[in-house]
Amino acid sequence: MGDFLHIAGCDMGIINENFMLKNDVAKTLYNEFARDLPIIDYHCHLSPEMIASDYKFKNPYDVFLSGDHYKWRQMRSAGIDEEYITGSADDYLKWKAFAKIMPMLIGNPLYHWTALELKRYFDVDIPLNEENAERIWNICSEKSISARSLIKMSNVAVICTTDNPYDDLKYHKALKDFETKVLPTFRPDLNEDIKSDITERIDYFHKNGCRLSDHSIDEMSDDISEKIIFLGREYAKRGWVMQLHIGALRNNNTRMYEKLGADVGFDSINDFSVAKKLSFILDSLEKEDLLPKTILYTLNPKDNYVLGTMIGNFQKAPVPSKIQFGSGWWFNDNRDGMESQMKALANLGMLGKFIGMLTDSRSFVSYTRHEYFRRILCSMLGEWVENGEYPEDYDALKEITEGICYKNAKNYFCF
Amino acid sequence: MGDFLHIAGCDMGIINENFMLKNDVAKTLYNEFARDLPIIDYHCHLSPEMIASDYKFKNPYDVFLSGDHYKWRQMRSAGIDEEYITGSADDYLKWKAFAKIMPMLIGNPLYHWTALELKRYFDVDIPLNEENAERIWNICSEKSISARSLIKMSNVAVICTTDNPYDDLKYHKALKDFETKVLPTFRPDLNEDIKSDITERIDYFHKNGCRLSDHSIDEMSDDISEKIIFLGREYAKRGWVMQLHIGALRNNNTRMYEKLGADVGFDSINDFSVAKKLSFILDSLEKEDLLPKTILYTLNPKDNYVLGTMIGNFQKAPVPSKIQFGSGWWFNDNRDGMESQMKALANLGMLGKFIGMLTDSRSFVSYTRHEYFRRILCSMLGEWVENGEYPEDYDALKEITEGICYKNAKNYFCF
Amino acid sequence: MGDFLHIAGCDMGIINENFMLKNDVAKTLYNEFARDLPIIDYHCHLSPEMIASDYKFKNPYDVFLSGDHYKWRQMRSAGIDEEYITGSADDYLKWKAFAKIMPMLIGNPLYHWTALELKRYFDVDIPLNEENAERIWNICSEKSISARSLIKMSNVAVICTTDNPYDDLKYHKALKDFETKVLPTFRPDLNEDIKSDITERIDYFHKNGCRLSDHSIDEMSDDISEKIIFLGREYAKRGWVMQLHIGALRNNNTRMYEKLGADVGFDSINDFSVAKKLSFILDSLEKEDLLPKTILYTLNPKDNYVLGTMIGNFQKAPVPSKIQFGSGWWFNDNRDGMESQMKALANLGMLGKFIGMLTDSRSFVSYTRHEYFRRILCSMLGEWVENGEYPEDYDALKEITEGICYKNAKNYFCF
Repeated sequence: MGDFLHIAGCDMGIINENFMLKNDVAKTLYNEFARDLPIIDYHCHLSPEMIASDYKFKNPYDVFLSGDHYKWRQMRSAGIDEEYITGSADDYLKWKAFAKIMPMLIGNPLYHWTALELKRYFDVDIPLNEENAERIWNICSEKSISARSLIKMSNVAVICTTDNPYDDLKYHKALKDFETKVLPTFRPDLNEDIKSDITERIDYFHKNGCRLSDHSIDEMSDDISEKIIFLGREYAKRGWVMQLHIGALRNNNTRMYEKLGADVGFDSINDFSVAKKLSFILDSLEKEDLLPKTILYTLNPKDNYVLGTMIGNFQKAPVPSKIQFGSGWWFNDNRDGMESQMKALANLGMLGKFIGMLTDSRSFVSYTRHEYFRRILCSMLGEWVENGEYPEDYDALKEITEGICYKNAKNYFCF
Repeated sequence: MGDFLHIAGCDMGIINENFMLKNDVAKTLYNEFARDLPIIDYHCHLSPEMIASDYKFKNPYDVFLSGDHYKWRQMRSAGIDEEYITGSADDYLKWKAFAKIMPMLIGNPLYHWTALELKRYFDVDIPLNEENAERIWNICSEKSISARSLIKMSNVAVICTTDNPYDDLKYHKALKDFETKVLPTFRPDLNEDIKSDITERIDYFHKNGCRLSDHSIDEMSDDISEKIIFLGREYAKRGWVMQLHIGALRNNNTRMYEKLGADVGFDSINDFSVAKKLSFILDSLEKEDLLPKTILYTLNPKDNYVLGTMIGNFQKAPVPSKIQFGSGWWFNDNRDGMESQMKALANLGMLGKFIGMLTDSRSFVSYTRHEYFRRILCSMLGEWVENGEYPEDYDALKEITEGICYKNAKNYFCF
Repeated sequence: MGDFLHIAGCDMGIINENFMLKNDVAKTLYNEFARDLPIIDYHCHLSPEMIASDYKFKNPYDVFLSGDHYKWRQMRSAGIDEEYITGSADDYLKWKAFAKIMPMLIGNPLYHWTALELKRYFDVDIPLNEENAERIWNICSEKSISARSLIKMSNVAVICTTDNPYDDLKYHKALKDFETKVLPTFRPDLNEDIKSDITERIDYFHKNGCRLSDHSIDEMSDDISEKIIFLGREYAKRGWVMQLHIGALRNNNTRMYEKLGADVGFDSINDFSVAKKLSFILDSLEKEDLLPKTILYTLNPKDNYVLGTMIGNFQKAPVPSKIQFGSGWWFNDNRDGMESQMKALANLGMLGKFIGMLTDSRSFVSYTRHEYFRRILCSMLGEWVENGEYPEDYDALKEITEGICYKNAKNYFCF
């Protein structure tokens, strides 16, 4: 009896049709307009090789944990030995270690992401924890899962990977006939010299379907400003979109960097000033009439109001919201971070023309983050309507919801 | 039938008696204490000439859009050609262009402001959008509206305009017998040299009813600190209030600046450090016992907690909250921004002695922003009471509500 | 009749069993798991001498106002003359002056703290205001109250005072047999030279039960970084915890500093950049494998996301959340500040391993702030459960609640 109650307790999954939908209007918006739209994942770090080869995942660890530094980071927060995170421990033991810490992640997006990932791809309804770890491992192991099967299940129309300017793009070429468009993104390293053949590389990417660039701005130096202005001109001439990801502080832990390299969970948020330099960069390009469509992302939420107003300085016909304030990124990719970014954008600019969500992820199960975003968006819009701050006008609300979830990105990018 | 439903949809106005009042206590506070109080608009950018001449507005475009760069900015966000914003297009076409974008401004204060402006001055209940644009144009066109009629309809007791130190104040003199006090504000440009006759100009303004100065601090240089300290002494000697507006980054778009000049919607938020320099300025004056009553405003909400604590360093008897943390300004003049400022003030200082709202506007229909503020204030106070965090003591709540909406400003300023 | 109603009005106290508990799950969590746990107050500024001598408070002024600069500060905000704050006025008149301003402190934590302090230690249910001032003075005066009686009433297991490195710790020695552990904290002044005998002092403190250090970082200079790195090594070798309190701007008002000295209510929040320097300090220690357990506190909430991610760079087995993001401190010690810190921690790290609240106070009645924190924590957790964002799994919720309120601190510190 006690045992029965206990199992009942841990059997309570959180993913149901109303997950994150806090009011009736939200439910209508999500179910009628948002839920079934395709995904345009215009910025991610998926491996094009894994898509091209239709990589078969070996086991639940491989699907959920391998390569996902968001999850590794929280395992370290729990005090788990590195052996069970990136070390040589058995996959199943790593899985169990991860399962064990889940309940302590109350309020963390990983708790929701993992629940969504388990539900959507494996129909697992029970929460992951120490007790359910083996049962869920077994359920997930029964299903054979590949990179493309996850993409197909997720209804993804476009994927933009993030690529080295000197990549030969052979996997993208190999994917030309795949039903989901898999396009490269031109991502030069601004901390390195820009080589003399860079415009040839831009042309090469362009020829292979690329219409999008990406840059990590980890400091606001004159040197980096100059490089962006130089590159921005080239993007503008070709009708590309320029993405600026501002504010990471990378590889903080030298010991772990020397052991494991970059992008393994030892990055955090920097806090330099951005307004003046960013204004200078955008103005320099606009003065020449060579400011490309641009998406500004900040890792530091203190800058939400700076970016939310900066975009307004450079809007120009005929593109609706030509300069975009990018969705809550990385450490802001959670309910509070997304709401904060969207509320800043709504207060300061035009939310209705926002191009919406991207995963920025290395994991193939991260497409559920689009669902998470859409539910949070609909909940926010619905709350405004139910509070009487916007009319219950479903023509307008449909246009807004469909726009932010899919159509605005479709119209904004020239894929 | 479909058409009927459709018209029904777009007929749903959001302005009713409970607009923004989310709980029963809020309704009582607003209706019993706040609603009917006069307005002291102690900081705005209205043209004294237009008041003196009782300017007659030509048409709805002239009332709502002419000169209002908040609205221009969002038209640009929508991708509307400048021709229909500040260009030579016909007034009615500009109006239609503005109407068309309104539904996309969900969550933007303009959506609420426009609805309030239409309701209060023209009794228009339907939302402005493409479909209703002509109908509303016609309704508004039927009513003849002037600068003074808008002031009268808004129950404004005091208006403080913002004036060049070398202004002769002839319009203010001409307005001596107007039932609303129209007073000048002394606003020297801190980026220019302070001339040797500046104290004479202060005296001239004083003689003409001015008791208030204003300064835009766009950077925190030693030069600007010195000027403020010099001027602060003079204000203190005369019992004036000193306003410091900190943190704008102006004229970001050189092309548009060269085309249209300043204050046309190409400004944004700067992000320099403020604490140490501000402390130095205020302390320098306090050391000489010449710190005037001071209002600190920040454009960057990251500084709300800095200013909210800075004021506490220099409070001094007998004035209640002699140093004020000014209301959410410009880009913060929205529900979230106002709540953020008021919650910071409540947590860190004494909300009950806050001098409340001002429009900071160039538009004569902006008085509705006082109504907007009062509703948001009452909603916040009411929520605390309904959550059991403050007793339902209407004597105290009346004093607080009336104070913040009117009486505190009346007592604070020496108009 | 009117009089009766009036008395009824001012008799409405806000402290009842559901104070701050906004939902049913919150009530269960608080009443079942949180309420009766002992307090580990691992950082405060209480006088060990007053505990050793079991100081007898002279009157309600002495209990509630003497030495509490939070309250003085708000009395100044109200425009009360310094004579009635720190001056020579009679204790009862100071009490009345404080009582009079209370209703204006709507939304300020002092309103709630004072209500809790009156209720828990004197069973006073009515709100403090001008009208009730005398009645409450009389009630409180009837009860004899001492330092130890307040500690006992508050169920305090451990108190860590904050001490000068050259303190002889005689009061701590004298308190060895007191049922509450009273331990010293090693607090060197980073603005002064670190003397050659500093490690001997650390050893002396260690011998007397100290396992905890504290540092105020008022600027991020190279000199201060070096001192912290030097000291950090010594703490790590001894298994101590290192606390870094970042971001105060002290003694802003020179006139009052010269009159009254430090820590009397003239401090505020600074706004320098912290990320790079802090990363350097922690990385320098980690490279040598000499990074002690560390708690990072920020006074400026703009840094919540910086610190919330910084801790993740240096987590290491086997300690769960070895690097802690400290609870909302000083000006953030209010509902919004605590929620903000906890939500940042939840989004970015592992809330379930948070070591929770401390008073940081000079006042013996401040233990009620632990109750305030626990109620706010339970309310937040309960809201997530009721919104369907976390399962109603009381095994996990018990572990989380008890952990944050008591057990995590117990396990983290080596007292």
